[in-house]
Amino acid sequence: MAGLGLAGRNLLTTLDFTPAEVRGLVDLALSIKAGDVRPDLARKVLGLLFFNPSVRTRMSCESAMARMGGSSIAVTAGKDTWQFECREGVVMDQNTQEHVRELAPVMSQFCHAVGIRKSELITTSSSTATATGTYEEIRGDDFIRRFAEFSDVPVVNFESNTYHPLQGLADSATMVERLGDPRGKKYVLTWAWHLKSLPAATPHSQMISAANLGMDVCVLRPEGWGLDPEIMGATRERVESLGGSLSETDDIAEAYRGANVVCAKAWAGLDYYGRFDQEARDKEGLRKDWIVDEAKMDLTDDAFFMHCLPVRRNVVVTDGVLDSPRSAAIQEAGNRLWTAAAVLAALTGAA
Amino acid sequence: MAGLGLAGRNLLTTLDFTPAEVRGLVDLALSIKAGDVRPDLARKVLGLLFFNPSVRTRMSCESAMARMGGSSIAVTAGKDTWQFECREGVVMDQNTQEHVRELAPVMSQFCHAVGIRKSELITTSSSTATATGTYEEIRGDDFIRRFAEFSDVPVVNFESNTYHPLQGLADSATMVERLGDPRGKKYVLTWAWHLKSLPAATPHSQMISAANLGMDVCVLRPEGWGLDPEIMGATRERVESLGGSLSETDDIAEAYRGANVVCAKAWAGLDYYGRFDQEARDKEGLRKDWIVDEAKMDLTDDAFFMHCLPVRRNVVVTDGVLDSPRSAAIQEAGNRLWTAAAVLAALTGAA
Amino acid sequence: MAGLGLAGRNLLTTLDFTPAEVRGLVDLALSIKAGDVRPDLARKVLGLLFFNPSVRTRMSCESAMARMGGSSIAVTAGKDTWQFECREGVVMDQNTQEHVRELAPVMSQFCHAVGIRKSELITTSSSTATATGTYEEIRGDDFIRRFAEFSDVPVVNFESNTYHPLQGLADSATMVERLGDPRGKKYVLTWAWHLKSLPAATPHSQMISAANLGMDVCVLRPEGWGLDPEIMGATRERVESLGGSLSETDDIAEAYRGANVVCAKAWAGLDYYGRFDQEARDKEGLRKDWIVDEAKMDLTDDAFFMHCLPVRRNVVVTDGVLDSPRSAAIQEAGNRLWTAAAVLAALTGAA
Repeated sequence: MAGLGLAGRNLLTTLDFTPAEVRGLVDLALSIKAGDVRPDLARKVLGLLFFNPSVRTRMSCESAMARMGGSSIAVTAGKDTWQFECREGVVMDQNTQEHVRELAPVMSQFCHAVGIRKSELITTSSSTATATGTYEEIRGDDFIRRFAEFSDVPVVNFESNTYHPLQGLADSATMVERLGDPRGKKYVLTWAWHLKSLPAATPHSQMISAANLGMDVCVLRPEGWGLDPEIMGATRERVESLGGSLSETDDIAEAYRGANVVCAKAWAGLDYYGRFDQEARDKEGLRKDWIVDEAKMDLTDDAFFMHCLPVRRNVVVTDGVLDSPRSAAIQEAGNRLWTAAAVLAALTGAA
Repeated sequence: MAGLGLAGRNLLTTLDFTPAEVRGLVDLALSIKAGDVRPDLARKVLGLLFFNPSVRTRMSCESAMARMGGSSIAVTAGKDTWQFECREGVVMDQNTQEHVRELAPVMSQFCHAVGIRKSELITTSSSTATATGTYEEIRGDDFIRRFAEFSDVPVVNFESNTYHPLQGLADSATMVERLGDPRGKKYVLTWAWHLKSLPAATPHSQMISAANLGMDVCVLRPEGWGLDPEIMGATRERVESLGGSLSETDDIAEAYRGANVVCAKAWAGLDYYGRFDQEARDKEGLRKDWIVDEAKMDLTDDAFFMHCLPVRRNVVVTDGVLDSPRSAAIQEAGNRLWTAAAVLAALTGAA
Repeated sequence: MAGLGLAGRNLLTTLDFTPAEVRGLVDLALSIKAGDVRPDLARKVLGLLFFNPSVRTRMSCESAMARMGGSSIAVTAGKDTWQFECREGVVMDQNTQEHVRELAPVMSQFCHAVGIRKSELITTSSSTATATGTYEEIRGDDFIRRFAEFSDVPVVNFESNTYHPLQGLADSATMVERLGDPRGKKYVLTWAWHLKSLPAATPHSQMISAANLGMDVCVLRPEGWGLDPEIMGATRERVESLGGSLSETDDIAEAYRGANVVCAKAWAGLDYYGRFDQEARDKEGLRKDWIVDEAKMDLTDDAFFMHCLPVRRNVVVTDGVLDSPRSAAIQEAGNRLWTAAAVLAALTGAA
């Protein structure tokens, strides 16, 4: 096969790729899943740098490498490693012990690709969130961007503060499988109430996953919980170039009506970063109305349900929806494996 | 080769397998050890979910996969992962973040088999034990049983509250190696004094390991430290069907006399679960008499000594016994590798 | 190929190998790097036992195994494992749970080689050091030596209290690459000021790395920060047998003058072990003068700069030196991969 021509590229967000390149990755994933393409990564090594816990992302990527004959080496930052620095010209006599100017080229020599998860809001805590700064301060994803700058091998974003492209690609693959041609179909990304203040990276990449397919994308969220305006703008530009649309609303019934896909996700209001106790109080009244349940799903055009998992049952979505044939959540999680395989094969030049 | 016909089966306890199936696994293990059978698990992935620390089980299973060409992905629950829920219909607005109804089918899509260690009493603490409930409350092994229910791939028990079948199979293989035909031989499982209250899973599976070989099995323990009556009953039924027997005693000299195998293990009295401080006081007087030493071994019919390791020297067994040719402990630990290989190959259909 | 004849050997320090054997390992590393030699370790397993955090050592060795077709299993002592005992005849009723007399032969049966990192002073703390004893008490490296005694497979020192031979070999390979024939060239190992009291294993092995090449080795350090006198003696004997020399000085300008290689490393004064607060006070005045900067490098004979990484920028070395073509630090770190591959291939008999 000719190859996708993506060897050596980084994947920080699919917005850095053309729609045709994104579609190439999705189609490659489905071909690998079907057994039609078998990329060979024998004796190739994926380095993984985790600043946060991970189940699905880590297992899907390690499994993808192993099934293609390769290996993974996962290190947990701050526990297996030192603290990293990414500012320029700093006198390193405080807490940081290794500069990304060394870390990135060194890992580049040991690995054929590097995956990095670094998000302020991913923790194993069941309720408490903390952030080192406002959303404006952390939205630059400095560490992974600087790492990519000094790396000689492809860098894959395993979830940053702004994007989670591997989730987005799995969602795109699932919609292609379920819908065939998703153009003209209505995709609703609905905010969900949750105990904890969760990161915006996944909903950003989910919104983009539908935009990359040229769908009619509707972001349903309460006032005050809008997504990143700059990313909304880039997404609108992307989706309109493909004949689709991007809208926002807080009208629940209006959004569900006629939907072909309902994707639920909890996320923190961007203005609440650093003051999550306030958010908890302000969103208390939203719990009752913002769960995905059978009544809301009945408003749709026989929509299927998506969620990135893990999901709190009967909080974000009812058992009735999640255990019904309407739910694509397990299929969607399974597609994490095949899209990871596609990305790793394409960026290392094996496909 | 024809294969053992165990593809797709779960291994929670060998009592779920027929004696012929168990013997098939033992013989396969010894054939792999001898180099006569070389199962191929290239590009196959074993997922490992550890709720507790593990050295021998983890290293033997990962090594078995690697030697057969496959890979392992180990995640530590609660550290790498979220907290898991396995109750039905629960509103997940407390500590649990992911339901086994999602976790199991998702891991099934990433892995060709899944190993789970989840025991209340395995910790790295050198002296303190805690339990979340009475033995009656935890003996159901809810998590692993529910996981197996929702998994699409074989689930292997890496030690639960009640069983540790991989240890049992290694013990069976060691006895076959040492005794040839173990039928009619006397096997003594002796309780040992220990600082800490240890789980009953290993002694249960060790008792069963001898029962599966049709031996005359004697459980030697102080009054108050009997094993699970229901498991004792199932073991008696198993061993009698093979022409052997199961007895219990607290008479040390009587038990050792004529023994062909002495297997030592410390375990907590089942009635002490949740009140281990009381157990520590009640067993203080037992320390002196319940160590395995040369004098006791001299009562036997030239028995060899078994222990699952790790072992506290000169507490559970004397240096004199452990460093003598009578000790099979190192051989027994080595057989963890080959029995793990047999189980993983058989359940995934590679043997 | 004939092979290096090192199969089955342990690597605790390169001083245990002849200069010809060391040079064989360095040349093998450069041949693997060039793609001229491709050792095959398919289905071979490296066991890794970490008592301390590790990035470069772990990733380079795991990557080396993976690139040669093999696998690694890393366990973290005290977290994944129990506490280990290595004294003889002890009644193990305190904190230790497993004796090295069991641990080593058991791991030997699971793995084809074992790497062990056990150092008192390697922690992720950015400033605080603690030691369980004086340097005299810990310089024996009891655990790894006892493990090697009871192991049936090669044991590789991944950094002990006294030696870090994998770093030393990478340094030797880098100097051979940069200098061709290093004999007669001046190598300066300079002490550097650092917030924290760091171990002496790396500077010992770095000094030896130049000695193994027959260079003129100069150890530049303040009074009171001399390296281990016994290791200095063995190094002097080694280097003089190869026509080189070993000297010590605290005269900074004199040491840099005419140097062909400047290798910087911070280490704790051996007399300060166990009283590091005192060391911090006593070395305060040294910070200004002991950094590697452009002015000092200008005194050399166009020397290149080495550092084992991680390095605190503008504390140990200035950005000006580290970001210049004079720096070999990235190349040196890259050579960790190839020297690890050479060691693992040679000791397991694959080269």
